[in-house]
Amino acid sequence: MKNLLSMKDLTVEEIMSILKQAQLFREGASSQLKQDYTMANLFFEPSTRTKMSFEMAERKLHLNVLPFDAGFSSTLKGETLYDTVKTLESIGVDALVIRHEQNDFFNDLIGKVKPVIINGGDGTGNHPTQSLLDLLTIQQEFGTFKNKVISIVGDIAHSRVARSNADAFSRLGAKVNFVCPPNCNAEFEATYNIDEVIESSDVMMMLRVQHERHDGKSNFSKAEYHQQYGLTVEREKRMKENAIIMHPAPMNRDVEIASEIVECERSRIFKQMENGVFVRMAVIEMILKGRE
Amino acid sequence: MKNLLSMKDLTVEEIMSILKQAQLFREGASSQLKQDYTMANLFFEPSTRTKMSFEMAERKLHLNVLPFDAGFSSTLKGETLYDTVKTLESIGVDALVIRHEQNDFFNDLIGKVKPVIINGGDGTGNHPTQSLLDLLTIQQEFGTFKNKVISIVGDIAHSRVARSNADAFSRLGAKVNFVCPPNCNAEFEATYNIDEVIESSDVMMMLRVQHERHDGKSNFSKAEYHQQYGLTVEREKRMKENAIIMHPAPMNRDVEIASEIVECERSRIFKQMENGVFVRMAVIEMILKGRE
Amino acid sequence: MKNLLSMKDLTVEEIMSILKQAQLFREGASSQLKQDYTMANLFFEPSTRTKMSFEMAERKLHLNVLPFDAGFSSTLKGETLYDTVKTLESIGVDALVIRHEQNDFFNDLIGKVKPVIINGGDGTGNHPTQSLLDLLTIQQEFGTFKNKVISIVGDIAHSRVARSNADAFSRLGAKVNFVCPPNCNAEFEATYNIDEVIESSDVMMMLRVQHERHDGKSNFSKAEYHQQYGLTVEREKRMKENAIIMHPAPMNRDVEIASEIVECERSRIFKQMENGVFVRMAVIEMILKGRE
Repeated sequence: MKNLLSMKDLTVEEIMSILKQAQLFREGASSQLKQDYTMANLFFEPSTRTKMSFEMAERKLHLNVLPFDAGFSSTLKGETLYDTVKTLESIGVDALVIRHEQNDFFNDLIGKVKPVIINGGDGTGNHPTQSLLDLLTIQQEFGTFKNKVISIVGDIAHSRVARSNADAFSRLGAKVNFVCPPNCNAEFEATYNIDEVIESSDVMMMLRVQHERHDGKSNFSKAEYHQQYGLTVEREKRMKENAIIMHPAPMNRDVEIASEIVECERSRIFKQMENGVFVRMAVIEMILKGRE
Repeated sequence: MKNLLSMKDLTVEEIMSILKQAQLFREGASSQLKQDYTMANLFFEPSTRTKMSFEMAERKLHLNVLPFDAGFSSTLKGETLYDTVKTLESIGVDALVIRHEQNDFFNDLIGKVKPVIINGGDGTGNHPTQSLLDLLTIQQEFGTFKNKVISIVGDIAHSRVARSNADAFSRLGAKVNFVCPPNCNAEFEATYNIDEVIESSDVMMMLRVQHERHDGKSNFSKAEYHQQYGLTVEREKRMKENAIIMHPAPMNRDVEIASEIVECERSRIFKQMENGVFVRMAVIEMILKGRE
Repeated sequence: MKNLLSMKDLTVEEIMSILKQAQLFREGASSQLKQDYTMANLFFEPSTRTKMSFEMAERKLHLNVLPFDAGFSSTLKGETLYDTVKTLESIGVDALVIRHEQNDFFNDLIGKVKPVIINGGDGTGNHPTQSLLDLLTIQQEFGTFKNKVISIVGDIAHSRVARSNADAFSRLGAKVNFVCPPNCNAEFEATYNIDEVIESSDVMMMLRVQHERHDGKSNFSKAEYHQQYGLTVEREKRMKENAIIMHPAPMNRDVEIASEIVECERSRIFKQMENGVFVRMAVIEMILKGRE
């Protein structure tokens, strides 16, 4: 693994190896990285979780982290992403985490620049470290992915989480259901009815309604969306014993998920965030060790 | 002390203990903190002094500090403060400094989240570390607070500094005067006439005219405000021997204070900023030691 | 050298000494700085290269770097640059890199504040560390500056790079040509014809067309500018054997320089950026050692 752009880049063996190392980090293992590396996190879209999680992972690995402020950089003067990355290469940066609004932004970079590229989310495309932390959370819960029923519910057309996860879950043997409003589906075979899956799912993975990616006004009020596609208090009660709730966050409380159940016993939402740090440590360590 | 939200949370003994430790840090003492903690500074309002002062204090305590950019975080996507703080808890943050435009923002957090919360200023409410640095500055000057006359002058209705200080000064035995324009007073007994207090005060504490918190236009031009409520060159000359000038900054030069006297012999304005670093070190150390 | 404001502050001996130390850093030398210093980088204008380069240099020198966000600081509340710098002085900052849109911003500071001031670019004025990295790049190439022909091409009236470089190149014995559009020249003796110098220059130093500093619309389309004043593919072929191409970046590809030649064999554009880190390490070390 030279870069991490998409879950499709990873073999099942590599995925399992990352999850194993992440779990070891979670249990207190120290990093095996020998050299001091310099990283930078280029977030061209707002983020709290992913950015802070990478920042924490990098510090736990004792890396040197340069601050980068997309809102105050030369991209404002029209500099291309390629030239910005070449600049950071010249300055001595070894690895970059990049979140960018453009799908497949990395196509302009791979094979042409020296720093490692870790995709922190590209437009409506991929978000591989989110997938990995989702996988770790499911593995911790069930020990296996085989025949687990995972229902991904919401705005799947605009969701890089849905895209990143779908393929990986399937390859690992899970069964994936998609549930979405009629106008939302772009490429996945989906049902429109959350009640069809609520009682049979091991994982209810609720997606955020991405108001900022809808240019026009939505067809639904928040209350209507919640009633038709949300994980309501009532639906939570009908979930299988031992079934869990996940959400990549940020959440719209009382839209895709009832506020009262965000921290209920089934919820793994904040545990997902805990796992994010360890998964990212594992990814960074694995890629940088490959360069030593 | 589990968190620091308001001066009212602190007993007189705790206040004196913080001031003592801050003075020791000022004189070169090293921190007694054993563990490596991670902090983040969540400033949802612009700040130079308070933010940079906390950043310096945290580095002098050898803490790990995660960068947080409110203007580029998921709060832009509608995430609640509670969910942002829970996110940082999940990522492994031990203590948070928060400045927020909403009074009592911490009511949503206390008792519900694990990280320590230090109030870095809440709306027009409290700013306890500013009070502590003011207290240290006065203590360094006079050795005692007993019977010292402290006049707080300016926009006291909008000032969290006035609010934080009033109670603490009184409890420590000082006499507090409030001076403000007629339209400014919200809750304090005040005089409208700075000249009534100028000759009898040991401390003239000038507040910033907060243009950004006045929605309409002011009743005064800057020159008029300066003449009626400002510390003019002429008024400084009538101050008591050994009386000092304080200001929490940022200053509007030639509005609440004449530019020529900002660095005069009586001014402790930049000394207040020096003290801010040491007071914040003492607060952070005391709270984090309480968790060990 | 107490501060670095302009190339004019430096004697030829000081310039050569900085270049020598920068080259040693480039070859792996460690810093001789004994004390832990605290720095802050105050960039009031967008920057990627210069800011990241200073951040890297400071970390390679193991300095403590406080984060400063001009877009979220008290300058928004009307605080003067002087008061901001005095604040940072009070907080304990030893050295500041400042980029500011106002020419000669440092005139309000020098002699009045304790922290070292390094000019990171002032309006259309100076950019001394850019000059130093340009000089290092030319020295690495030719071993000497004597009689080397350096052509600076572009918007020289708005360019602090042109201003910083012109004097230094001349003092070091190089011959400087200026080439610019008719409406661009403010103070330098210039030709309007790039083809007059293309075959005789050892260095073609292309400047960025600074769209953001032109208030009205330009007299040229991008294609016209490229054809008349740009380094086209055709012109590159007519350059002298061993002649090199430089650009301070960010580049407008296909305006002042053809995209195809940005990374051609003659180009030293990314090497300039590499040199920037080492030159800045040398400058910071020299100034801070002078204070020990």
